[in-house]
Amino acid sequence: MAIWLNAADDGFESAFKDLLSMKREVSKDVSDVVETILARVRAEGDAALADYSARFDSIDLAVTPMRVGADEIEAAHAAVDPKVIEALTLSEKRIRSHHARQLPKDDFYEDDIGVGLGHRWTAVEAVGLYVPGGTASYPSSVLMNAVPAKVAGAERVVMVVPAMKGAVNPAVLAAAKIAGVTEIYRIGGAQAVAALAYGTETIAPVSKIVGPGNAYVAAAKRAVFGTVGIDMIAGPSEVLVIADGDNNPDWIAADLLAQAEHDTGAQAILITTDAALGRAVEEAVERQLKTLPRAEIAAASWRDFGAIITVPDLDTAMPIANRIAPEHLELAVDDPDALIPSVRNAGAIFVGHFTPEAIGDYVGGSNHVLPTARSARFSSGLSVLDFMKRTSILKLGPDQLNALAPAAIELAECEGLSAHGRSVSIRLNRKE
Amino acid sequence: MAIWLNAADDGFESAFKDLLSMKREVSKDVSDVVETILARVRAEGDAALADYSARFDSIDLAVTPMRVGADEIEAAHAAVDPKVIEALTLSEKRIRSHHARQLPKDDFYEDDIGVGLGHRWTAVEAVGLYVPGGTASYPSSVLMNAVPAKVAGAERVVMVVPAMKGAVNPAVLAAAKIAGVTEIYRIGGAQAVAALAYGTETIAPVSKIVGPGNAYVAAAKRAVFGTVGIDMIAGPSEVLVIADGDNNPDWIAADLLAQAEHDTGAQAILITTDAALGRAVEEAVERQLKTLPRAEIAAASWRDFGAIITVPDLDTAMPIANRIAPEHLELAVDDPDALIPSVRNAGAIFVGHFTPEAIGDYVGGSNHVLPTARSARFSSGLSVLDFMKRTSILKLGPDQLNALAPAAIELAECEGLSAHGRSVSIRLNRKE
Repeated sequence: MAIWLNAADDGFESAFKDLLSMKREVSKDVSDVVETILARVRAEGDAALADYSARFDSIDLAVTPMRVGADEIEAAHAAVDPKVIEALTLSEKRIRSHHARQLPKDDFYEDDIGVGLGHRWTAVEAVGLYVPGGTASYPSSVLMNAVPAKVAGAERVVMVVPAMKGAVNPAVLAAAKIAGVTEIYRIGGAQAVAALAYGTETIAPVSKIVGPGNAYVAAAKRAVFGTVGIDMIAGPSEVLVIADGDNNPDWIAADLLAQAEHDTGAQAILITTDAALGRAVEEAVERQLKTLPRAEIAAASWRDFGAIITVPDLDTAMPIANRIAPEHLELAVDDPDALIPSVRNAGAIFVGHFTPEAIGDYVGGSNHVLPTARSARFSSGLSVLDFMKRTSILKLGPDQLNALAPAAIELAECEGLSAHGRSVSIRLNRKE
Repeated sequence: MAIWLNAADDGFESAFKDLLSMKREVSKDVSDVVETILARVRAEGDAALADYSARFDSIDLAVTPMRVGADEIEAAHAAVDPKVIEALTLSEKRIRSHHARQLPKDDFYEDDIGVGLGHRWTAVEAVGLYVPGGTASYPSSVLMNAVPAKVAGAERVVMVVPAMKGAVNPAVLAAAKIAGVTEIYRIGGAQAVAALAYGTETIAPVSKIVGPGNAYVAAAKRAVFGTVGIDMIAGPSEVLVIADGDNNPDWIAADLLAQAEHDTGAQAILITTDAALGRAVEEAVERQLKTLPRAEIAAASWRDFGAIITVPDLDTAMPIANRIAPEHLELAVDDPDALIPSVRNAGAIFVGHFTPEAIGDYVGGSNHVLPTARSARFSSGLSVLDFMKRTSILKLGPDQLNALAPAAIELAECEGLSAHGRSVSIRLNRKE
């Protein structure tokens, strides 16, 4: 049984606030452990990596080399079911083609007094991609992180992946190969983040680290932020489905469960104008759970965090959706396009009855790395821009300097920065 | 005396690496104190703010209201020298007009199989702007942070500024008024960051916090990252001037000192093809220091971190500049435009002899909030994009679902996510 709320009820606001503030993640305080690991890798380099890999991943890096060999990547690619290779290849092609449209344009213009203003975009030279080990080691995520970095023009895309007893998921290596990633190290945890940020004898440092990970990885990324750039701190996944009465409850239930099966902390919410549909979806969820391999996880997520919110009309639904700021928003309504302009906070919108979120996870072409935990209020899904940076350009000649100097000098003096003022006044009324 | 390096020397690489890794900031570990402050403000709200303000800023919030009144803002604006008001007004106008060009475009298109793909940009609804107190309380920074947020379309731009004994720099309040910021609270430190992130009885929470601050503010921003978005963690300022022999040494010296006067940890570097110019600049620095109000700070910065690097030619200069990845890069050479394509890592480029960096600080129109401490390798100066977020859009009809379903199902099964596969297969070969 999910949580039921009715937007027309008196107690709605308070119950909705409780829903919004539900804690879906056990936040372990691992910062002390992580600080130690970061400091050791920074000081001892490869030796520290070898020690941690032996301890945490039961792997002897003196026997199994840290870097995954080209032959090992080839062998993995050959060992993976050709149908999977075909699907990954299609996925890579679609991601690449969509992300190529995100390449930003340089700009340079002269304003009305002849000041030249503009900017240039350039790629981050070296990017580190963290790929989790174990069951969360997803080849699709390799593509979603690596392809935008490649499209941006990053020269080095370095992958790290923890390898319990040395074994890396072959599908992950196959995805790396398809994405053109050849520099792969079998290390994980905070120590891998440290190696990417600070470098070791074997691993040259990168400038930006992306990719999901456990609490240790997240804390390490937070700590090295500034030394390198990082992407978001990812939390448990979420979907919000907005549905009118004219829906197949089985389809909606399948979508809610696709989210719930990720993690017991995942959250699936349905907002509907039709309470009868809500009840039918709830029944369908129970029915579908019976035949779901990950039923235990999905059932726990649905029981603890699943919610059905009934609303009098779709106009009421949208402000509620924007307050939830979901990672994924499905618009399962008669005229979904009409709702899009009202979406303010969401990582991604899936439009209409034939766009289940899972298509976006794999082969839609858009990125599946999206802001969780209400962070769509202030951040965006991963894109090519995350692997580029903008350098601004300013160009004055003598006339422009003369025109702007008085104001600059005035403000410099007001701020007590005389040398700033002098660097302007010294050029006043001078010619080249 | 600055540090002298010669790129043609055998020992250059090692000496240059030392220069790059110089620690210019005392990194105080304040995270425990900050954690306590954050937790108290989160739990106790206004009461905690009152306590900390009494303790750290000698201000009784029961007597002096936390929110700066409209009358106080008006009075400050009226009290500031009209020439400063005029300069701030010009600055605001130029920043606004340049940043308006940064407004991104929405996109939507159908690909070759009819899948609809696109994105929408929307503004962050509520932004918090931290303004430091004391001597670093710069009205120009208020404009540089507030105007892009306003241009982006943020509905709420909230300013916090610590006010020792209740007093706020009138020029800061005047800049706020000129930028259209009306919600201002006289609080500072980690407690102000906490109030913006979590909200209190008086202050509604924001979604993103920007602006510079001391070690406590920086640690607090790092800690609340995820609950809200943050901008970069700013370090001491830097300039790199690339100069050929045909330069006025006094101009270059003035530019180096304009950077050095910010902070004893600031860094000013000159790369030149002409050692004689280097020596002349060094002499000019010593001469100009004699008449500089902030000579003590500037001299310490120049002595400890200033550097002059001689290079055989400009082609050698550029890779060195890119490794430094300076916040500010001045191109004081005969043909500066020819060097621009070689700039890979820099926050901003100031082109030619008549574009001293200080113009960009105040009235150029481009943003003066730029990446420090080599972070131009992976990040950009502040822009309108920092106050917006992108929602991606995906739209399939039955035909597109049928075309992409097999690959999606294949990958879902490969990743062990059957509910993902089911949410796709359940729609296969169905019509609306």
